[in-house]
Amino acid sequence: MSVQPLLIAGEWQPARELVRTFRAEDPSTGEPIGPEFPNCGETDVEAALAAAAAVAHELAAAPPERIAAFLETYAEEIEADAETLVSIAHAETGLPKHPRLAAVELPRTTSQLRQAAKAVRSYAWTQPVIDTAANLRSHLAPLAKPVLVFGPNNFPFAFNAIAGSDFASAIAARNPVIAKAHPSHPGTCERLATLAVTALRKSGLPAAAVQMLYQFDRRIGTQLAGDARLGAIGFTGSRTAGLALKSAADAVGVPAYVELSSVNPVFLLPGALAERGAALAQEFFTSCTMGSGQFCTNPGVVIVPRGEAGDAFVAATTAHFAAAAPNVLFSRAVLDSLQQGVATLRAAGAELLAGGNGAGPGYRHAPSLLSVTAEQFLHDPHALQTEAFGPVSLLVRSDGAAQMVQVAAAFEGNLTGTLYSAADGSDDQAWAQIAQVLRPRVGRLISNRMPTGVAVSPAMNHGGPFPSTGHAGFTAVGMPSAIRRFTALHCYDNVPDHQLPAELRDHNPGGVARCIDGCWCIDDIDHGVPHA
Amino acid sequence: MSVQPLLIAGEWQPARELVRTFRAEDPSTGEPIGPEFPNCGETDVEAALAAAAAVAHELAAAPPERIAAFLETYAEEIEADAETLVSIAHAETGLPKHPRLAAVELPRTTSQLRQAAKAVRSYAWTQPVIDTAANLRSHLAPLAKPVLVFGPNNFPFAFNAIAGSDFASAIAARNPVIAKAHPSHPGTCERLATLAVTALRKSGLPAAAVQMLYQFDRRIGTQLAGDARLGAIGFTGSRTAGLALKSAADAVGVPAYVELSSVNPVFLLPGALAERGAALAQEFFTSCTMGSGQFCTNPGVVIVPRGEAGDAFVAATTAHFAAAAPNVLFSRAVLDSLQQGVATLRAAGAELLAGGNGAGPGYRHAPSLLSVTAEQFLHDPHALQTEAFGPVSLLVRSDGAAQMVQVAAAFEGNLTGTLYSAADGSDDQAWAQIAQVLRPRVGRLISNRMPTGVAVSPAMNHGGPFPSTGHAGFTAVGMPSAIRRFTALHCYDNVPDHQLPAELRDHNPGGVARCIDGCWCIDDIDHGVPHA
Repeated sequence: MSVQPLLIAGEWQPARELVRTFRAEDPSTGEPIGPEFPNCGETDVEAALAAAAAVAHELAAAPPERIAAFLETYAEEIEADAETLVSIAHAETGLPKHPRLAAVELPRTTSQLRQAAKAVRSYAWTQPVIDTAANLRSHLAPLAKPVLVFGPNNFPFAFNAIAGSDFASAIAARNPVIAKAHPSHPGTCERLATLAVTALRKSGLPAAAVQMLYQFDRRIGTQLAGDARLGAIGFTGSRTAGLALKSAADAVGVPAYVELSSVNPVFLLPGALAERGAALAQEFFTSCTMGSGQFCTNPGVVIVPRGEAGDAFVAATTAHFAAAAPNVLFSRAVLDSLQQGVATLRAAGAELLAGGNGAGPGYRHAPSLLSVTAEQFLHDPHALQTEAFGPVSLLVRSDGAAQMVQVAAAFEGNLTGTLYSAADGSDDQAWAQIAQVLRPRVGRLISNRMPTGVAVSPAMNHGGPFPSTGHAGFTAVGMPSAIRRFTALHCYDNVPDHQLPAELRDHNPGGVARCIDGCWCIDDIDHGVPHA
Repeated sequence: MSVQPLLIAGEWQPARELVRTFRAEDPSTGEPIGPEFPNCGETDVEAALAAAAAVAHELAAAPPERIAAFLETYAEEIEADAETLVSIAHAETGLPKHPRLAAVELPRTTSQLRQAAKAVRSYAWTQPVIDTAANLRSHLAPLAKPVLVFGPNNFPFAFNAIAGSDFASAIAARNPVIAKAHPSHPGTCERLATLAVTALRKSGLPAAAVQMLYQFDRRIGTQLAGDARLGAIGFTGSRTAGLALKSAADAVGVPAYVELSSVNPVFLLPGALAERGAALAQEFFTSCTMGSGQFCTNPGVVIVPRGEAGDAFVAATTAHFAAAAPNVLFSRAVLDSLQQGVATLRAAGAELLAGGNGAGPGYRHAPSLLSVTAEQFLHDPHALQTEAFGPVSLLVRSDGAAQMVQVAAAFEGNLTGTLYSAADGSDDQAWAQIAQVLRPRVGRLISNRMPTGVAVSPAMNHGGPFPSTGHAGFTAVGMPSAIRRFTALHCYDNVPDHQLPAELRDHNPGGVARCIDGCWCIDDIDHGVPHA
């Protein structure tokens, strides 16, 4: 039996300890596809960690130009290989080749790598702060330790552990990466890893800057997460798995940036419904079922006013859901978890309006709509916030603003919260009341847009209060901000100019924005005084 | 028996549950002084938490001007009461009135409050980032939950839970505070609390913005730290206590910014010793014994080259230590812990060169110097990094740069690391080799200065890698940076201008530095385009 090798220290090498093997599946048929991949053991994990740790200081000292060149070369390699990558990812995930994989996610991924490269060249992620009087200079700096990245199932490119936002962020901050594939698309991960190796070679970065492991048992993962040789962890996935990793990491002071779960409440205010209820029903249905609803920012709970306009919205939405064909999900695990989620919602009193069934071949489920009253929701908010990852949403039928405020107050931390309001300003008072309560419970507050689009922008926040993520101060998407997760604050006190990092020296290395004596500028410093 | 009341929701009220009482002691005599203070129970802690949580939304929405006015009024109240405050703090801590308490720490505290006010007025801590094309706008925002602050023993003003850096930072970010006094100076805390109440009243902030508890048992503290109603925790103190709080907070996703311990290694390079060994001996002795050595940044381990210049330094330093009178420590607990620390160092093979004894009256200990070889240190780095909080330092006699690099690599995370080098550049190569290894292990890298001065500067980092603190990305000193610990990242997506926070609107509220489309400026935005 031939089993794919692991990538450790720049070498493709067979697993030292082959616990078992696994294959990808075509989720539209449930049939195994592609080669056997290794579920590896402790000695492999140790080898990957040791290799990454051994180059951490070298990588931390690498010239920014070389880091940027790697990120850009990697983007070019991915583009040159786009057709193959899209084919493999389509076969492993069931996501459509067009437009999703080829025209949306792959360009997003290469753009993200290039935005990271730009942040490296401009030093924007380092946030230099200089106090000339005290001669104190600080910036964000590499951890000089490996970053462990766990990729999720739902973005085979843009959040891939070896190509996505966490990866680009960790490398931009000059940290080596140990990438842990998502086992539902190992072939995509392997293909990306080979491109990463080529880009490493072309850019002259140390080969051990990147390792690729495909799978290991939970016990080994928890042990690895609790290893103080790590600098940080980036994780996107299930709440149970993420919290276990975070707990192990917390105990040894390793920051674990975990993105866990979110139901992304959407409040439809009465004026908006009266104004454009039918359009909102279409917009909501599209957002909830796009990508088979397998987005962290899927609109999982929609608060709909009682009354005529609300009833019409529910009827139109129900018709959309009822008419839709079953969606292909990523895996049996996703299907099982979705069915469990729907069962939990129903057990808590939610009425099924449409869908509700799994279907074959492969792993399919009907787009599903459920409904509860606000009173039911407020009676059991915990169960009724269960995330049913997939094309599923729960409607909460509510009275006016006062009850919507109560519903908003019952939400735990979420990535997003959305308010739809009328163009004529008639919802503005309700907007203000609900937003005040919703605002601190979400990372991104959205007006009159569905939450499923997450732009890669410096002003994006793809993060939110616990338990949607592990720390409300950081975003997983957006350059340079996402890079900051994988940095440490470093201060230089009275250190001579020639011994400082480039961006903290008197001479600005070229257009770097620095906060000098309280003002942001791109000036040099001359005899302790900034000058243009 | 009359027992001092607690401050909850703006009212001085007797403890509902008086577990026991305690009094301060004059550490120079060991005699109890001042009134009885309450060690309170769960119902009191719950009352304080509920009161703070109840005003969190109101405070988050308070106009920045009112927050700034509170901080400035409080600074004025402290200045007007300086003589009394200094007297009480001197009696409770044994710290000299002049210059330490009256001329250094109290002005530092009021300056810190005013710097926080300035950061509030300029919105500097909010770091606004705007993407005009995507209409995404993000900033750092209040947690809208209470911040729990534990004050340490060693800065009765500047780190007091109700007046120091954590307090000023939490309030600047518009979060209510639950202050937990250090039980060795309850009278100082009470006096400051009365001034805070006056300032709250004068500035019109909600009375429950500040609560004052004096003491509760560890079990109750751990339970409180693990309460998800908290927004964050600021803690400065012992590693054991801090890690217990952090662990409880981590489990419910409450960020705990804990400052735990540090031995602050100082490397004396051969050229520096040859150039000015006698002056360095004096400088080191002064730094190690100032404030009875009770600083987080006390130089606890000094790496001294073998050979003639090193021997001369050791002889001169030993003479300084041997000639010094015993220092008054803060409390019996500090004395006990110091003696335990010295015993641990000696048990691990350190030779006592000077001091080593406790003394009366009260809680005194001789300034103490110990020594090991680099080989011993490398053999048992864990025990030989034991922090002996007080006027104690361990010398590590080392060969040249290569061995110093090994010693540097054996250090766990520290607040500071220092290198002394020759003015003629002869140490520069060794500097670079050692600094590369030391840099990621410390928050502040210092050249030719002792670590004990911590300037309140925007470029300061009073933080460092675990276990010196809980997160290497944040500083506990310096405005606006220290404020960021008590914030959440908030993004506004497509939200109309009039529903945005002031600093994210098109119209700049007045000189606020914002990063618009990648450039820092103080411009307005006109039809989606920044203009001056």
